[in-house]
Parts: sequence; structure tokens; C-alpha cells
Amino acid sequence: MYAFGVDIGGTTVKLGLFDETAKVLDKWEIPTRKENGGEAILPDVAKSILSKMEEKGIALGEVKGIGVGAPGAVDDEGTMVGGAVNLGWGVLNIPEILHQYIDVPVKANNDANVAAMGELWQGGGKGYSNMVAVTLGTGVGGGIIINGKILSGATGAGGEIGHIHLEDDETECCGCKKKGCLEQYASATGIARLARRRLAKDDAPSCLRGRENSAKTVFDAVKAGDAVAIEIAEQFGDYLGKGLAAVAAVVNPEVFVIGGGVSKAGEILLSFVEPAFQKYVFYPCGKAQFKLATLGNDAGIYGAAALILK
Amino acid sequence: MYAFGVDIGGTTVKLGLFDETAKVLDKWEIPTRKENGGEAILPDVAKSILSKMEEKGIALGEVKGIGVGAPGAVDDEGTMVGGAVNLGWGVLNIPEILHQYIDVPVKANNDANVAAMGELWQGGGKGYSNMVAVTLGTGVGGGIIINGKILSGATGAGGEIGHIHLEDDETECCGCKKKGCLEQYASATGIARLARRRLAKDDAPSCLRGRENSAKTVFDAVKAGDAVAIEIAEQFGDYLGKGLAAVAAVVNPEVFVIGGGVSKAGEILLSFVEPAFQKYVFYPCGKAQFKLATLGNDAGIYGAAALILK
Repeated sequence: MYAFGVDIGGTTVKLGLFDETAKVLDKWEIPTRKENGGEAILPDVAKSILSKMEEKGIALGEVKGIGVGAPGAVDDEGTMVGGAVNLGWGVLNIPEILHQYIDVPVKANNDANVAAMGELWQGGGKGYSNMVAVTLGTGVGGGIIINGKILSGATGAGGEIGHIHLEDDETECCGCKKKGCLEQYASATGIARLARRRLAKDDAPSCLRGRENSAKTVFDAVKAGDAVAIEIAEQFGDYLGKGLAAVAAVVNPEVFVIGGGVSKAGEILLSFVEPAFQKYVFYPCGKAQFKLATLGNDAGIYGAAALILK
Repeated sequence: MYAFGVDIGGTTVKLGLFDETAKVLDKWEIPTRKENGGEAILPDVAKSILSKMEEKGIALGEVKGIGVGAPGAVDDEGTMVGGAVNLGWGVLNIPEILHQYIDVPVKANNDANVAAMGELWQGGGKGYSNMVAVTLGTGVGGGIIINGKILSGATGAGGEIGHIHLEDDETECCGCKKKGCLEQYASATGIARLARRRLAKDDAPSCLRGRENSAKTVFDAVKAGDAVAIEIAEQFGDYLGKGLAAVAAVVNPEVFVIGGGVSKAGEILLSFVEPAFQKYVFYPCGKAQFKLATLGNDAGIYGAAALILK
């Protein structure tokens, strides 16, 4: 038996063919055609899967199902209930549309939740069943798994931890229109903002001066022992540790799995987050482990396949 | 068929006899005998249930089960894994002990979680399946229900929302030894502290001056239009709204059900919490409703019975 994992993004759709042992046999991408309300996206996915089945000589009866991750709120029936504005979609039932082309079980969920499931199944969260995945990218995303199941929430916004309010004194707006969200300090853009503010504060020497900074330049400077960069990383760690301590007091996970572009800094990132987490966490929730995500951009196709195979 | 709901507290054990329609047929209390490591507590519960069955002419085969709420961390097998220090208990399997006296199914969980389940089943959360119960008493407790099931967490500390860190500038310690927890501002003692601090700040006239204040005196003064009391209630509401907005970004509930002694202030309490919640909440999580708990001290026996009957 086989399963397909589909991760629908704003630019490309990633697809993976898995066997029942969770091994990825093939992976590929197709463009996301967003014109006309994104009406071609799901038909394109179905056709791509059908042609892969033909290529590999896989019969319909050998396909256990198709898992789909999509960027927006998806309810438990696989209906996209909103939020997928960057695909052009309105309300739309993913299984129903795919079933018009290919008659196998289809399960769908929000892409961040699906990526969390991927990390739980075959990545940094392997072996755990209560996990919070934290994605530090352009924004800060989250995916929560409780007893092995995705916590979708009442309106599909479960795990949106990037919008926990942490800073009353913030003057700039977050993408969500409020001020002081975790995302404003712990995302890639947030770290760049912390760097800009710290550098403007005084004239302390730093290799970060006189150039455009990013999470990468900051953590590279931290590794080189730059004192100002270390201050910035501590500030980042304090915000993220405080935010994750709040998350721990709510869902009491076994493990936090940190992924996204910022996590490419490696283990050194965790060395700034964990002490801050311990500073703020309610002690019965303080045993949570911190791990780095290991699946990178493949977390989505793994998690989508897990919806079928796990 | 019948079920018993048992709510074990530090002073008394509350018991209830329910029929399958969720109607409470009888309720009573026995003292909690904490001497000798609390070894008599569960045998006392079993004997009290057996004598109630005899009194009512209920046969063993007519008892669908016994649900138990206990003050500490309880794992999914009903083992008390810690935290029940005020009962004198160490690690102890509740179903195993009760089975020595009475051979019916037994389910156990943490008392705050069980009370949340009670409010979901027959109280302020009736009709919902994703709920956060917030208990504003001496401390601030919480119980989270996701898809109709209790979120216990990895170490039984799920829903401990009173220890979300909210205030970096706090100088006094919370009961948990950290500083700045939600509980320090939204509990009964927290509101009294906010009152003390506000009154010390200046000489603004207030009916709260010159006496010992509590959540009750503050909200009574609010109802009488006292401007200083209203300021205090706004501060309370801001902290609680901010904390619950963080909770909403994590688990995205349909409803918050507010109970505990402080909630006796009534609907006016919600009028201070909801606007603050809306100020801080991530908009896709902002549709959460606010309700008052309706079962009072009976939430525990209802929730314990729900573990069997729901």
C-alpha cells in the first residue's frame, strides 16, 4: 500500500509518494496555479498523482489515501473554512474536489499543523505524542499535537502561538494589526528588528554594524563571539522562552520542536531559548524537551502522508 | 443505570448519585481523613458509595461506574502521579484501590479538569465541545476540553493557566515561586492586592478606603459606581483578558466559562474581561464566547459523573 502527501504552498505544491513503512519513494513539485480563484490547484494535484501512479505502475487499490496540508483554516471534514487568501480560495471542500478525479480516502488539515504532524511522525518529535511545533520563519507559526492528534481549535486557529501578546510597550504593528506579538521578536524579521533597535541604542562595537542584518547574520555573529549579537540573541530567547512558557502552562507538552529558517542557526539557538523558558515556566510544565526540527521543507509532505498512514 | 461522581477535596469529599439522564438524585459529603498518608480516603469513599447503594436499593449491576476528581496530577490510567500533597498521597492508582471494595468501572482525573468537564456537560459550557474553564478562587485554575475530552497534558499540568507570566515588573512572588503570574492579578487574593496597591498610590476618594478589601468589596463598589474600584476592575480585566487571549491563541476554544468565588460578582465581571480579551486576541480566535459557570461547588461531582456517563 502507498500514500501520497501533498503540501500546498503559495508558489509550489510539494508532493511525496510514501510506502507503509513511512519511507518516501519519490518527491516532486508542481507550480501552484492561483489564477481564477485557484480553481486549477486541486485538479492539478489529482492529475499529478494519477500520472505518478501510472509512471510507477501503482493501481488505485494500492493507494491507501491522500493527505493534504493547505495554508489556511481547515475543519475536521477537510473543508477549507477560510484564510487561504493567497491561493485565491474561498470556502472549499478539499476531499470532495479530489474525489472527482481519484476515488481514494482524502484527509486535509492546515499546513502548519500538518508539518507538526510530520515532525512528530518522522522528525524531531519522533517518539513523542504531546508536542508543540514552533516554526520560526517570516512569521512565527505553531502546530500542536495532543495524544498524537492535531489540535485544530474551534475555528482552525489552534497553535497560532506567534500572536501571543508579550510586549505592552511595542509601537510597531504586527501583521495581525495588534502590537507586541511574539512574532514581532522571534521571527526572522523580528530578529532583524531587534538587531536594528539594539544597534541604534548606542555605539558598542559589533560586526553587525554597517550592513543589512538577518537572523543568519545575528547568529553567525553570536557564533563568532560578538557581544552585541549575543545581547540580541538573549533578547530573542527571552521573548520566545516567555511565549513558550505560556504555551506550556496551557497544553503541557513533552517536547517543543523548533523549525523554520531561523532554526538553521542550529543547537546554539536552543541555548538562548531554554534558559529563558525555565525562567518563566510553571515548574510542573518545566520538563518539556527542546529539539530542532529535522525534516526541513519536507515536513509538510511527511505530515500529510501521516494523516493517512499514522 | 446509575453513576457516582466523587470530588475529593482537602477538607471534605463531595459525592453525587446520578441517573443516566444526568439528573442528580442525591448528593452528600464525608470528611477527608488525611492522617496516615490519607490511606482512609478512598476506602471511606467506597464504603460511603456501598452504603448509599444499600439505602437506595441499587444493585452492583445497576452502577455504570464511579468518576473521581482529585487535587493533583492524574494520568490517563487514573494514577495519581503527584501533586496531591494536601491529601498526604504519594503515587497511587485510584481505580485499583476502589476496585478492592467495589467492582465497577472507575475513571479519575484532576479536580480542576473534572470540574471543567462538569460545566461542559451540564453547566455554563453546555452545548460546546471546545472549552476553557477558568476558576478564579484563591488561585487561578483552568481546565481545557478539546473535542469533548480533557486535555491532561504530559505531566497532568495541562490548563494551569494561572501561571502564565504576564508582568515583568512584579516584585512579589507567586505561590509557584516565580513573579508576574496571571494568578497574582486575577485571583481573589490578586484582586485584593491590586486594590491595596491602587489605594496606596494616591488619595482619590473611594468607599474601599479604611477597610480590608476582597474581590467582593471591589466588585460591590464597582456596582455602586466607585471610580477607584472601576479602575481596579479594569486592571484585573486587562490582566485576565491578556492571559485568556494567550490561551485562545494556543487552543482556540469556542467558549471560556468563568467560575470560582470571584465569579460571584456576576455578569459585570465579564464586562471587564471581554473588552480586554478583544484588545489582545489574535482575530481568528476572537469569536470565543464568555459565560459564567453555573454549577458552583457541584461542578466536581457533575464532571466526575460525566467521566462515566458522557
